[in-house]
Amino acid sequence: MTDRKILLSEKDIPKQWYNIAPDLKTPLAPPLHPATHQPLGPADLAPLFPMALIQQEMCADPWIDIPQEVLDILKLWRPTPLHRALSLEKAIKTKARIYYKNESVSPAGSHKPNTSVAQVYYNKKEGVKRIATETGAGQWGSALAFACKLFDLECQIYMVRVSFDQKPYRKLMMQTWGGIVDASPSKKTKYGQALLKENPDNPGSLGIAISEAVEDAVGREDTKYSLGSVLNHVLLHQTIIGLEAIEQLKLIGEKDPDVVIACVGGGSNFAGLAFPFLKDKLKGRTNPRVIAVEPMACPTLTKGLYEYDFGDTAGMTPLVKMYTLGHDFMPPSIHAGGLRYHGMAPLVSNLAKDKVIEARAYHQKECFASAILFAGTEGIIPAPESSHAIHCAIEEAKRAKEGEVIIFNLSGHGHFDLASYEKYLSGKMEDYEYPMELIKESLKKVPKV
Amino acid sequence: MTDRKILLSEKDIPKQWYNIAPDLKTPLAPPLHPATHQPLGPADLAPLFPMALIQQEMCADPWIDIPQEVLDILKLWRPTPLHRALSLEKAIKTKARIYYKNESVSPAGSHKPNTSVAQVYYNKKEGVKRIATETGAGQWGSALAFACKLFDLECQIYMVRVSFDQKPYRKLMMQTWGGIVDASPSKKTKYGQALLKENPDNPGSLGIAISEAVEDAVGREDTKYSLGSVLNHVLLHQTIIGLEAIEQLKLIGEKDPDVVIACVGGGSNFAGLAFPFLKDKLKGRTNPRVIAVEPMACPTLTKGLYEYDFGDTAGMTPLVKMYTLGHDFMPPSIHAGGLRYHGMAPLVSNLAKDKVIEARAYHQKECFASAILFAGTEGIIPAPESSHAIHCAIEEAKRAKEGEVIIFNLSGHGHFDLASYEKYLSGKMEDYEYPMELIKESLKKVPKV
Repeated sequence: MTDRKILLSEKDIPKQWYNIAPDLKTPLAPPLHPATHQPLGPADLAPLFPMALIQQEMCADPWIDIPQEVLDILKLWRPTPLHRALSLEKAIKTKARIYYKNESVSPAGSHKPNTSVAQVYYNKKEGVKRIATETGAGQWGSALAFACKLFDLECQIYMVRVSFDQKPYRKLMMQTWGGIVDASPSKKTKYGQALLKENPDNPGSLGIAISEAVEDAVGREDTKYSLGSVLNHVLLHQTIIGLEAIEQLKLIGEKDPDVVIACVGGGSNFAGLAFPFLKDKLKGRTNPRVIAVEPMACPTLTKGLYEYDFGDTAGMTPLVKMYTLGHDFMPPSIHAGGLRYHGMAPLVSNLAKDKVIEARAYHQKECFASAILFAGTEGIIPAPESSHAIHCAIEEAKRAKEGEVIIFNLSGHGHFDLASYEKYLSGKMEDYEYPMELIKESLKKVPKV
Repeated sequence: MTDRKILLSEKDIPKQWYNIAPDLKTPLAPPLHPATHQPLGPADLAPLFPMALIQQEMCADPWIDIPQEVLDILKLWRPTPLHRALSLEKAIKTKARIYYKNESVSPAGSHKPNTSVAQVYYNKKEGVKRIATETGAGQWGSALAFACKLFDLECQIYMVRVSFDQKPYRKLMMQTWGGIVDASPSKKTKYGQALLKENPDNPGSLGIAISEAVEDAVGREDTKYSLGSVLNHVLLHQTIIGLEAIEQLKLIGEKDPDVVIACVGGGSNFAGLAFPFLKDKLKGRTNPRVIAVEPMACPTLTKGLYEYDFGDTAGMTPLVKMYTLGHDFMPPSIHAGGLRYHGMAPLVSNLAKDKVIEARAYHQKECFASAILFAGTEGIIPAPESSHAIHCAIEEAKRAKEGEVIIFNLSGHGHFDLASYEKYLSGKMEDYEYPMELIKESLKKVPKV
């Protein structure tokens, strides 16, 4: 009988992260200083990040050792199971074999702790006492609070106000791990104060929260900043997902996958699963097809421009070359909060520009329908973000030829997103496709570089 | 390096459940008809349960085969990991080795699906179309909704009104799996209608919800009743936990445990871990010490009487010999909702009466303190119920001699219980020790048999 789960033991956990940068077809465009537009050096990033992470951000080695202290903590939940979706396959009568990597088993419930543990480790090693960050839906904030708790660092989280108010459970999770959580815009930063003066009811956005966290970190000697996606070193730390998956498929004698699928917001869970599968493709192989799935309501890869733009709303971060909808693009409040970001990781953008990967956008209601099918077959209630990958996998499986192998990333569970399930089940959820005219408006704000 | 997790593969999942009944020192007292007080026969239980479960309830064989169809679904998440609590051990500087069985990895987040899947399977096999049940905090209701979804049965859940209002996420989880959830007391039953007429704001209790579910099942041809704890067959299905744990300890060459710990509400997660470890002890061995941990606010084993009593409030269920605080005992609303039950499984009660197991009661605040220590070391935020086992394990580990082995059951995660963490962290949580005079009052209502 075919096993439902393919497990590795702790000794089989990857010992190195895979850095895709040196394997890219087109070299990565350098990040630029937000004021001078000159390429950044390590010293420019030093107020924000510890030097070890800056080196990883700019590294040209394809393999980077994972410190033993990081591995030791990752082993609390890693290696994660690779599931064969036997019940889902049966329900949709597919000719394909579907696998999913289950990142929902981490303490914070998503792939995010793969990088938070590494980031906090390097910060601690360089004497940092306190880390500031932003969080939208709360996945990243809870992952960082968890890691800070384990390494005994203070964790300051600026949480987008609308999530702060609507998602009390994620906030409580951060607080249970000792995180200090403020609704953003907050009174703790000058940028937040200015926005609140303008509008005391400002609902906040991820871009605003990033600006606040950066201001906080730059203004305090004991504090650095931490980001949960987009940057090269963050994506690097996530490659442990795909490296494990490759070993797991080998273990059961499965062939290389035909299709690799993950959702994209900033790009980190996608990179985590997909990059290790791209190594050979970048050297000339045609397989696998790799699909990045985004929401119609925030169609960065499918409708954005590939340009230099800011990572935040206030224009305080470096300029990076990426697909962007414009740095003050305000996506509608779809339920997949983790996919509401105006930009896309430069590494993922580079691969999309070079057509190494494909992009696809779906409406949220079709994704929720697939999420409920998944919950009723495989058992796990997925995060709304992950439901985009599930929906794509189901679509691909339905058109698949006999024996095709599809693998997707189940980036997290939906235990804190059940209010959105209620909205879907009660028929109150609406789809939203961003009008191209509005996208064109916000794209006009992309700086000329 | 010592592994943090001991994993079994799916082929190593136990193929039989362990039935402790034939190994008891004192034979189990038979259940009695609520009206006639005569011992029940299988026919008396037929309106409530399918015959296969009634046979298990009364079975004298020590081993019962697990159907392949049940195993196949359990493999969605089983075997569950046995964790070595390395980080917790370090934090409390114990001389003991601490292990915990992680039942939080199931789709519903607790041990409950171990029995819901088996129960729904047997119901389906006997042609049942619909199952009615009660739920307090929601762990059981979501486990049953999950299993009904997989086997395509309708699931009617009477959820204690105070939980229905205060725990919307658990309710939404049940609905996501297709469960029909009503606040209890409800208008769907005569008993519920009568209570609502008396008091439209009746907050409900587990005993009331049981009465409603039983009335529902008895009144419809297509419907049976299902219970998430207390009964022999429910405890039987949970023994897969301890059977796996024994194999996992063997796998790493660990000695037999010195102390086995689990929390008790109705008794099912306790039985699941502990019964397989008791098999040899019932044949004369002195090891291990086995501790059932209950809350001070509902001290069934430590302050109740060992008498025949009803399982529900209305007196509709059979009379069973058990430790009880009286069937209309109304425990204060402590946060460990799963431990708020006036009775205790007859099997667990029998073992406590014969001093094969020990019982201990803790205040909720000390349990929450231990839960937060656990979350900050092992990473997992535990259910308030499980925190009682954690606290006991920590207490035992602190006084342990060099090399003692302690194992406890992490019965579930606390993702839907974070509001109670907030109450603890904000200093607003209160301890409550039930006054002996009030217990004596409710004990007077225990029927004379």
